[in-house]
Amino acid sequence: MIGFRIKKKSGRSAARLGVLKTPHGEVETPALVGVATQATVKTMTASQAEAAGCGMLIANTYHLHLKPGEGVVRKAGGLHRFMNWNRPMMTDSGGFQVFSLGFGMDLGQGKILRRKSDSRVTVGQQPRLLKITDDGVEFTSYMDGQRLFLGPAESVGIQESLGADIILAFDECTPPSADRKYTERSLERTHRWARVCLEKHRTDQALYGIVQGGKFHDLRRHSAETIGSMPFDGFGIGGEFGDDKRQMSRMIRWVTGVLPEDRPRHLLGIGHPDDIRRIIRAGVDTFDCTAPTHYARHGTAFVPSGRLDLNQVQYLKQFRPLDSKCSCFVCQEHTRSYISHLIRAKEVLGLTLLSFHNLHFFHALAARAREDIKRGIL
Amino acid sequence: MIGFRIKKKSGRSAARLGVLKTPHGEVETPALVGVATQATVKTMTASQAEAAGCGMLIANTYHLHLKPGEGVVRKAGGLHRFMNWNRPMMTDSGGFQVFSLGFGMDLGQGKILRRKSDSRVTVGQQPRLLKITDDGVEFTSYMDGQRLFLGPAESVGIQESLGADIILAFDECTPPSADRKYTERSLERTHRWARVCLEKHRTDQALYGIVQGGKFHDLRRHSAETIGSMPFDGFGIGGEFGDDKRQMSRMIRWVTGVLPEDRPRHLLGIGHPDDIRRIIRAGVDTFDCTAPTHYARHGTAFVPSGRLDLNQVQYLKQFRPLDSKCSCFVCQEHTRSYISHLIRAKEVLGLTLLSFHNLHFFHALAARAREDIKRGIL
Repeated sequence: MIGFRIKKKSGRSAARLGVLKTPHGEVETPALVGVATQATVKTMTASQAEAAGCGMLIANTYHLHLKPGEGVVRKAGGLHRFMNWNRPMMTDSGGFQVFSLGFGMDLGQGKILRRKSDSRVTVGQQPRLLKITDDGVEFTSYMDGQRLFLGPAESVGIQESLGADIILAFDECTPPSADRKYTERSLERTHRWARVCLEKHRTDQALYGIVQGGKFHDLRRHSAETIGSMPFDGFGIGGEFGDDKRQMSRMIRWVTGVLPEDRPRHLLGIGHPDDIRRIIRAGVDTFDCTAPTHYARHGTAFVPSGRLDLNQVQYLKQFRPLDSKCSCFVCQEHTRSYISHLIRAKEVLGLTLLSFHNLHFFHALAARAREDIKRGIL
Repeated sequence: MIGFRIKKKSGRSAARLGVLKTPHGEVETPALVGVATQATVKTMTASQAEAAGCGMLIANTYHLHLKPGEGVVRKAGGLHRFMNWNRPMMTDSGGFQVFSLGFGMDLGQGKILRRKSDSRVTVGQQPRLLKITDDGVEFTSYMDGQRLFLGPAESVGIQESLGADIILAFDECTPPSADRKYTERSLERTHRWARVCLEKHRTDQALYGIVQGGKFHDLRRHSAETIGSMPFDGFGIGGEFGDDKRQMSRMIRWVTGVLPEDRPRHLLGIGHPDDIRRIIRAGVDTFDCTAPTHYARHGTAFVPSGRLDLNQVQYLKQFRPLDSKCSCFVCQEHTRSYISHLIRAKEVLGLTLLSFHNLHFFHALAARAREDIKRGIL
C-alpha cells in the first residue's frame, strides 16, 4: 500500500511537489529513482547509494527472474532484506527488457541499443526473436539461449515474490520506429494485459499501470484514458520519446494531462540532466535513469558544464575536484587526477567514485527542482 | 623518520609486541599492511580500507612509475594526499615486480606466476627478458613493450617522489629455483645496491634494507649480517620461502635471529591465514599479503573453517552471513546468498564486499596474535 499527497502544484507548469508514502518510508517528489537492476546500484553499497541521495530504488524483474531467480529473493524475505535496502523500492515489469532486446537484435535499435538505431526503419510486424501471443511473450534468455515465457500473470507473480513496495504492470514497449498499425495492436495488448495484472494481483503491494501509445497523440491520450480509468495505485509512462527534447515534453504532457491527478506518475527510463526539469514541468513525480552509473562505468563524470571523460590524460594533471562546488564526499576528498589515474589503471574504485558523484549530481538536480517548485519558479 | 618501540617480547617465541611511529600516525605491531599497489586497496574506498582494519598500506613503485608516473603523485602532494590516505604508508622498491615478471615469463614461475611453477627447473643464469647490470635492470614495460630501466638510484628517486613514510631498498628477488652460484652473485648485487640506496637517499623518509639469500642458510645469515650492519631504519625480508610452512618459519628465524632487535622487520608478500601466527612467532613485525583482495576478486571468502567459493550455486540458498561470528559490516548486513548472487551476476559490489570481509578477517587474525602476545600465549 502506498499513499500520495500533493503538497503544492506549480502555477507555472504541470509540476507537482508531493510525498510518496510506502511501507518502507517516504520519498519527497519529484524524485529520481536509483537504478538497481540486479538488486544493487552498480559498484555501490546500499549505504553509499543512500548517501549519494537515493531515496528509492528500482530493480528489474527480467534480470532477477534469470538471476538469482525470484525464489531465492522470496526466501531471503524479499528484495529489501535480500539487498539490505530499508527504503522504498519498485520493480520494473520486465516487459521493456523482453521487447527491447528482441527488437534490438532484429533492428539494431531499441532503447538499449539506441546508438546504433536507424530511425528510418519502421516496424510493421513482430520482432523475429520474440513470439508474442495474447498471454505474453516467448523469448530467448540472454544467458543460456533457453526459451522463456513472460506475460502479465508471470510478471505479477514474479514481482510479488520479489516484494518491492511498488510493482509495474506488464506492457509492450514499442520501438520508436513502430508504425501506427503495429502500435495500435500493441496498445490493445498492453491494455488487455493491464487488466490481467489487476486481476492476478494478490498482495498489498502498490500496482502501477503503464501508459504506452508510441509517438501518436491520439493513441497516447487513449492509453492514458484507458489505464487512468483502471484502479491502479499509480501510473508508469513508458516507451520512446525521441531525441527532440521539446517534443518529449509535449508527448509527456499528452499523457499527464489525461491521467488522474491524485495518483503518482513514474516516467520509465528517462532523466538525463537536461531532461530532469523538463519532465518535472510536464507533471512527472518520479523517474529512473541509468545514466549516472552507466556513464560512470565508462569513466565519465557529470558536472555543471557537461561531462568529463576521465580516461583522458589531461585530467591526470588537474588536482582539483570533479566539481569544485559539489558537496559529495568524492569531490570533498578526491581530485580529478586521482580519479583519472584509477580509471586509466582499470581500478574498480574509479567506477565507484564516479557512480557516487554522478548519482549525487542527478539527485541534486532533482532536489533543486523541488526547491524551485516550493519557491514558485518551476 | 619513524620510531619503533618494543613493548613486550614473547617468552615463548621470537614474537614482539611493538609500536611503529610514523609522521602519519602509529601502528601497533605485529600488523598486516594492506596492499594498495596502484594507490588503492582494490575495490575499496580509503575509509572502507580503514574500517576493514588497515592501519598502514603498501603501494608499489613499479606500478606507480608506469601509471600515473611519480611526477603526477609528487605534484598531488605525495601518495597520502593523492589517494587521501592519512595513515602510515610504505612503498615497495619495484625490484620484486621487475624480477618476478622477468623470471616468470622465462620460466613460467616466480611468485606472481607460482601456480604454474615447475620447481625442478633451476636458474643458473639471468632471465632473458631482463638485462641486469651493476646499475640496475633493463626491462620491458608490461603496458606498451617500452624498454625501461630501474636500479637502486632510480627506485629511491621514485620513492622519494611518491613520498611514503617508509621506502624500501632496491633488491634482486631470486626465484625459488635459483642455484647457489646465481644466488651468491645476486646477493652481492643486492648488498651493493643497498649501499647505493643509502647514499642516494635524501629525504627524511625511513629507508628499509632488504635481506635476500634464497634458500641457503649461510647466504641468508650473511645477508642479515650485512644489511643489518648498515644504518637502515628497518629491514625487509624478501624472496621465496617455499611451500613448506615449517621450513618457512625456520628460514625467517635464520634472518630475524641475526637482524638488530631494535628496528622493525617487514616480511614482504607473505601472510596467508595459516602463515600469520607462524611469521609473528618468527619475529616479524609487519607483513603484506595480496590474498585478501586477490581471492575476493575471484569470488572467494576467507572464514575460520577455510574458504568459500561464492561462485557456487549452493551459496545462493544460504541466508546466513559469510561468518556468523564476524563483526564486519558485510557479515552484519549481508548474506552468503546475496553475495553469491552479486558474484554470479558479475556485480562489482560483490568484489567490494568480499574484499572488505577478507581484509577484516586477516586483520582480526593479526589483532588476535597481538592479544596473545600480551597474554603470554604466543
